[in-house]
Amino acid sequence: MSGAPGDPLAPGVWPVTAHRGPAGALVIGGVDVRDLVAEHPTPVFVCDEVDVRERAAAYRAAYAPGAPALGAPAPGTPAPVTPAPGAEGAHPPGEVYYAAKAFLAGTLIGWLAEAGLGIDVCTGGELACVLRSGLPASRVILHGNNKSVGELTAALDAGIGLIVVDSFDEIARLGFLAEGREPIRVLLRVTPGVAAHTHEFIATAHEDQKFGFSLAGGQAAEAVARIIALPQLHLAGLHCHIGSQIFDAAGFAEAADRVVAFAARVHAAHGLAMEVLNLGGGMGIAYLADDDPLDVAAMAERLRGIVRSACTAHGLPLPRLAVEPGRAIIGPSMVTLYTVGTIKPVTLDAGEVRTYVSVDGGMSDNPRTSLYGAQYTVVLASRVSEAPLMACRVVGKHCETGDVVVRDAWLPADLVPGDLLAVPASGAYHRSMASQYNLVPRPGVIAVRQGRTATVLRAETLDDLFAADPLLTAVPESVRESAHGR
Amino acid sequence: MSGAPGDPLAPGVWPVTAHRGPAGALVIGGVDVRDLVAEHPTPVFVCDEVDVRERAAAYRAAYAPGAPALGAPAPGTPAPVTPAPGAEGAHPPGEVYYAAKAFLAGTLIGWLAEAGLGIDVCTGGELACVLRSGLPASRVILHGNNKSVGELTAALDAGIGLIVVDSFDEIARLGFLAEGREPIRVLLRVTPGVAAHTHEFIATAHEDQKFGFSLAGGQAAEAVARIIALPQLHLAGLHCHIGSQIFDAAGFAEAADRVVAFAARVHAAHGLAMEVLNLGGGMGIAYLADDDPLDVAAMAERLRGIVRSACTAHGLPLPRLAVEPGRAIIGPSMVTLYTVGTIKPVTLDAGEVRTYVSVDGGMSDNPRTSLYGAQYTVVLASRVSEAPLMACRVVGKHCETGDVVVRDAWLPADLVPGDLLAVPASGAYHRSMASQYNLVPRPGVIAVRQGRTATVLRAETLDDLFAADPLLTAVPESVRESAHGR
Repeated sequence: MSGAPGDPLAPGVWPVTAHRGPAGALVIGGVDVRDLVAEHPTPVFVCDEVDVRERAAAYRAAYAPGAPALGAPAPGTPAPVTPAPGAEGAHPPGEVYYAAKAFLAGTLIGWLAEAGLGIDVCTGGELACVLRSGLPASRVILHGNNKSVGELTAALDAGIGLIVVDSFDEIARLGFLAEGREPIRVLLRVTPGVAAHTHEFIATAHEDQKFGFSLAGGQAAEAVARIIALPQLHLAGLHCHIGSQIFDAAGFAEAADRVVAFAARVHAAHGLAMEVLNLGGGMGIAYLADDDPLDVAAMAERLRGIVRSACTAHGLPLPRLAVEPGRAIIGPSMVTLYTVGTIKPVTLDAGEVRTYVSVDGGMSDNPRTSLYGAQYTVVLASRVSEAPLMACRVVGKHCETGDVVVRDAWLPADLVPGDLLAVPASGAYHRSMASQYNLVPRPGVIAVRQGRTATVLRAETLDDLFAADPLLTAVPESVRESAHGR
Repeated sequence: MSGAPGDPLAPGVWPVTAHRGPAGALVIGGVDVRDLVAEHPTPVFVCDEVDVRERAAAYRAAYAPGAPALGAPAPGTPAPVTPAPGAEGAHPPGEVYYAAKAFLAGTLIGWLAEAGLGIDVCTGGELACVLRSGLPASRVILHGNNKSVGELTAALDAGIGLIVVDSFDEIARLGFLAEGREPIRVLLRVTPGVAAHTHEFIATAHEDQKFGFSLAGGQAAEAVARIIALPQLHLAGLHCHIGSQIFDAAGFAEAADRVVAFAARVHAAHGLAMEVLNLGGGMGIAYLADDDPLDVAAMAERLRGIVRSACTAHGLPLPRLAVEPGRAIIGPSMVTLYTVGTIKPVTLDAGEVRTYVSVDGGMSDNPRTSLYGAQYTVVLASRVSEAPLMACRVVGKHCETGDVVVRDAWLPADLVPGDLLAVPASGAYHRSMASQYNLVPRPGVIAVRQGRTATVLRAETLDDLFAADPLLTAVPESVRESAHGR
C-alpha cells in the first residue's frame, strides 16, 4: 500500500527537490505543480533537472573519479595497470554509460554529456537520437541481440566507441562490414549464469535467454577465438548484464567473479588482457518507501574490491570497470501528474469497499503496472488533506480492466474530480515504453529547475495520432499557408 | 507449440485468402510476401481486405440482417416490438459496433462503413479519428470509465449516436453539458457479475473493476433513477461487457439473462422499456490451430433466443440486440511479417537445445506476449522447407529478456538470416498498442487485395521518433523547400 500515513514524500522515492509548498501543494524544481499543469495540462511527466544531474554525477564520481570524458582511448593511452603480485593495484578510471532504453531525449543527452557520461544504445533509433544531439559517437556503446546490417553500418560510419557483440552471426557480420576500416573495438557479451532480481540472485550454469555467449557452454571461449582471428576486430573487454531492479550487490559480485575467471582463461590461452569489464545495469530504485536501493559509491567500491582480488589471484592486470545505469539515473527524477476524473466506490464480495479513482492517463503512459505488476507510490499533489484515508485503486481511462496505475493505494476520503495526483519514480520505462493505445496522445516531459520549466518532449496532439494515416493526415495549417506563399 | 508439423496455415488462424504460392512462399490477398516486403520492408503488418470485409459482413448478417445502416433512429421509427404473450416475437434488427481499440485507421473505417457497421470509441482520439474519416457521428457509440468534459463536449457537438454512461459523476456531468441541447441517448453500463475468459466464466454478485454500475449492489437501479430524473438524458438501453477472448457463449447467456431481469425491474418501477440491449464484445479468435472460436451466426441466434425467452417471461418488448466485436473482426485479418536476423542455439540446464530466433521487431509491435503471455502461431513465410523442425523461441530486437514474440515454436532447422517469418492473428491490439520502445519506429499496415497493395498506415521513420523533441525536430526538407518558395 502506498500513500499510507507516515510516509509523505519518502526520501529516495521522490526527486531531490520535491517538497510540499506553503499551501500544501507539491513543488518540484521550485515549481508548484498547480502552476505547471496550468501551462502543461495533465497527464504530464515532470523531470527534476537537479535530481538527474546529481545522480549522473554520483555515478561518475563512484566509477570514474577524475577521469576525462568517456571515449575511445586517445593514441598513446597507457595499457591497463598490472598490479604487483599480492599488492593492491590502483584501478584505472572506470566508465559510466547511461542506458538509453530507460528514457532518451535531446535535453537529457546534454545533461549526461556535461556530467561526463557515455550512452548505451541498442537500436539505430537510439543511436540516431544520440548522434543528432551532438554527442560524439566515441562516447557511445552499441548493444543488441539482433543488430541489423544497417544499424551496424550506421554505427561504424559514425565512429562508434564500442560494439557489444552478441552472437556468432554478428561476429561474421562485423568482420565483413569492418573490411577497409580502422579496427573496431568490441566487448564480448557473456552469460555468466547469474540471474538477479530485486532481493535475490540465482546462479546456474546455463541461461535460457537471447543475449550473450555462455561461459559454461564454451560458446564464449569460441567467440573469443573467432574475434581474435579477425584482424578488423579488437577485443577490448567483456560485458555481462544480470538482471533489473536489483537491491543486492551479491549477484553483481558473483558475476564479476565468474567473468574475471573467464578473462584469466582468455589471458592464458591467448595472452590477451581485457581492458574493460562492463557489468551492465540493473541497479534498483525505490518505488515504495520500503525499497532500499544500493548506495552507488559503496557498490562501486565493493565491485572494485572483488575485481581487484580476482585479478590479483589470477595475475591479471586491472581492467577499467564500466556500468550502465539507466533506471538508476532517470527513474527517480520524474513524477507523473494526473488529474482525477471519476471516483467510484465498488463493494467487493467480502463487503469491503474499494474506491476506484480514474485518472486521465493509464497503461499508455505507465505500461509497467500491467506488464510487470509493478507497484507505485501515489499522493494527492494539489493540496494536503486532513481527511481519513480510503483504500483506493488508481486506474486509467483506457477501455481495459487491466488498465491500473497503482493497484493498492491510500488516498484522502475527500478526494474530488479535479484534484491532482502525483506518481513518483516514473522516469524509466514510462515515456520510453508509452503507447498511443486508444488513440491517447503521449504526455509531454517538462523539466523543472529553480522555478523555471523547459520542454524536454512536448505533449502529443491529435494530429500526431494520425501522422501515419494517409487518409487522415493533413499538413499543418501554418505550414500549408507558408507553402502557398502566405 | 505452434508451427508443428501437420498444421500448415490452419484455417481460422490465417486470413481467408492466405495460401502458399507455387514457389512455396506465403501469398495474402494475391500478393507474394517476398514482393510485398521488397516494397514495404519488415516488420510490416499485412491486412487482408477481403477477410476484414467478410468478417464485418458476417457480423452484420448475424445481428442486423436487412437493417439500414446504423444510426440514431429516424423520426417515426417504430417502438420496440412487444411480443404476444407466449408467442415468439420477431426481433427488431440489431446493431454491430466495431470496437475501435483493437485497431483503427481511416481505410478500415471506410470498409466498416460500407459493411453497415457502427463504431465503438472510448476516447477523444478515437472519436476524432472516426469523425475525420467522415463516418456520421450518429453511427458512433462512446464508451469510457473516465470521459473528460472535453471528450463529452466533442461527442455532443458532433451529434454522437449513443453515450454509455459509466458512473454517477458522469451522469451529473452529462446532465450539465446537455443543457440547451437535444436529449442525449444513453445506455447504462451495468456489471452483471459475470466474468468470462476463454473457456470459462465466473458468476458472482459483485465485480471488482472500474467499469459500470453493479446490478447486485443497487447502483444500477439508482443510476436509472438519476438518469430518468434528468430530462436531457434519454435512457435507450443497457450495456454490459463480460471479458475478452471468450470461446464459450454461456457467459454471454448468463449475462443476458441477468440484464433482462434487471430491465424487467426497471420496467416495473418506471414503466420504461429498453430499446437496446448491448452485450459488448470479447468474442475469441484463433491464435493457435486448436482454438475454436464461436460461430458468429449461431451465437447471435442463441443470444436472441435467450433474450426472447427472458423478455417473454417478464412480459417485456424485445430490444434490439447490439454487440461490439473488435478483435473478432480485425484480429485474424492481419499477419505480421518479420525478417530473421540472428539465430542462436542455447543449451539449457537439462541439456536440451532451444534455438533463439531473433527478428527485426518484438515487444514494440506485439506487446501481447509480454503483457498477457499470449501464444501465437509462426511459420517460415518466404519459402517452404523439408528440413526437420527445431524447438525455437522467436524473440525481438529489444534490449529486454522478456522481449518474446512466440514463446514456443517449431521452425525448420535450415532457417537462415534473411528468411521471412509470418505471425498470423496480429490485427488486434498489436499496432494499436504498439510503442516506440528502444526508439524502434512502428511498422506500417499494408492492405492487400487481388494482387494489389494499399497503405493503411505508413511505416514510421526516424523523423517520427523525434517529432516531440524540440532539440531534435527539423521540419521535413520537402516542406521546408515549399515554405521557402521552392
